[in-house]
Amino acid sequence: MDRKTEIINCAAQLFKNKGYSAVTMRDIAQALDIKAASLYNHIKSKQEILVLIIIEIAEEFTRVMNEILESDAPTINKVERVIQLHIAITIRNSDALACLNNDWMHLTDDQLAYFIRMREDYENNFRKIIKNGVEQGEIKANNQEVMVFSILSTLRTLYLWYGKTKKISAEELQKSMSELYLKGITNK
Amino acid sequence: MDRKTEIINCAAQLFKNKGYSAVTMRDIAQALDIKAASLYNHIKSKQEILVLIIIEIAEEFTRVMNEILESDAPTINKVERVIQLHIAITIRNSDALACLNNDWMHLTDDQLAYFIRMREDYENNFRKIIKNGVEQGEIKANNQEVMVFSILSTLRTLYLWYGKTKKISAEELQKSMSELYLKGITNK
Repeated sequence: MDRKTEIINCAAQLFKNKGYSAVTMRDIAQALDIKAASLYNHIKSKQEILVLIIIEIAEEFTRVMNEILESDAPTINKVERVIQLHIAITIRNSDALACLNNDWMHLTDDQLAYFIRMREDYENNFRKIIKNGVEQGEIKANNQEVMVFSILSTLRTLYLWYGKTKKISAEELQKSMSELYLKGITNK
Repeated sequence: MDRKTEIINCAAQLFKNKGYSAVTMRDIAQALDIKAASLYNHIKSKQEILVLIIIEIAEEFTRVMNEILESDAPTINKVERVIQLHIAITIRNSDALACLNNDWMHLTDDQLAYFIRMREDYENNFRKIIKNGVEQGEIKANNQEVMVFSILSTLRTLYLWYGKTKKISAEELQKSMSELYLKGITNK
């Protein structure tokens, strides 16, 4: 891992534990056991670190969602792939996801607008997947906003829960969550 | 509405918009268009307001969950009633729910411990409902933690989403969300 990645990962953990506003560049240097001056050789500011953490993850979500939307797969597989995307990123980088969820509002100007646009596009693309599924007869003709909100709210807060238990493998989580949202919890 | 309830509602809205830490008793007095001294005739401190907002709602969740758990209804009806409970409180008092979700960690000592215990009991009681449903053959024998987490994460963040749209009635929301979690989104 290069030094810059190390700094970003360390900062994401500090932001998660103390909140972005309460963390100083000095705290980050201390946690890495380096001098503050040395930290500034790699990174200009706390704001720059925040951008690196959040925008990188948001771009990954955006890119994969676009691929899923444009694929020829049935809607059911598309929904499964969206679930898979969130599980994979949650397992790989839950600190950064916590930071994205709690601290995105500390982004400024262009970066803030860029993030909000990506977030809206993401929701809209998921909405299109569901809408298309209803039109194709794969998905029930029930309230689509309730489906979009219910699934995304669970996926977006997965990092809060998964970090606590860790008793379940990615495969088991993928299987259980897909089953739940595609077929419900009741027998029959 | 008595003056104390007015103060609490006004404070809940301010806490939601600015965050508990950023709001002063002076801000609350100003928003109510009364003198700070007059505010202190009704309420001792900002902390007291927070306790009144959060504990009252947490106790309502606790009480209704206990009733649901102890009823003789089939599990499917119990899950529907839990969904109904969250929808009703979200519609009636979304500011207080936002406050509960964002600011509970600002409770202190006994109140904090009491809140955390209620929250844990609530989750455990919902877990028991699901477990019992699996044992009775009403609920699928899939991962129960995934069911508990998925449903509760959606219900707990409903206030974030419902406040934005409001295009859907309580009845429609209840019906769509129950259908989704009980039978899934796919046709067949």
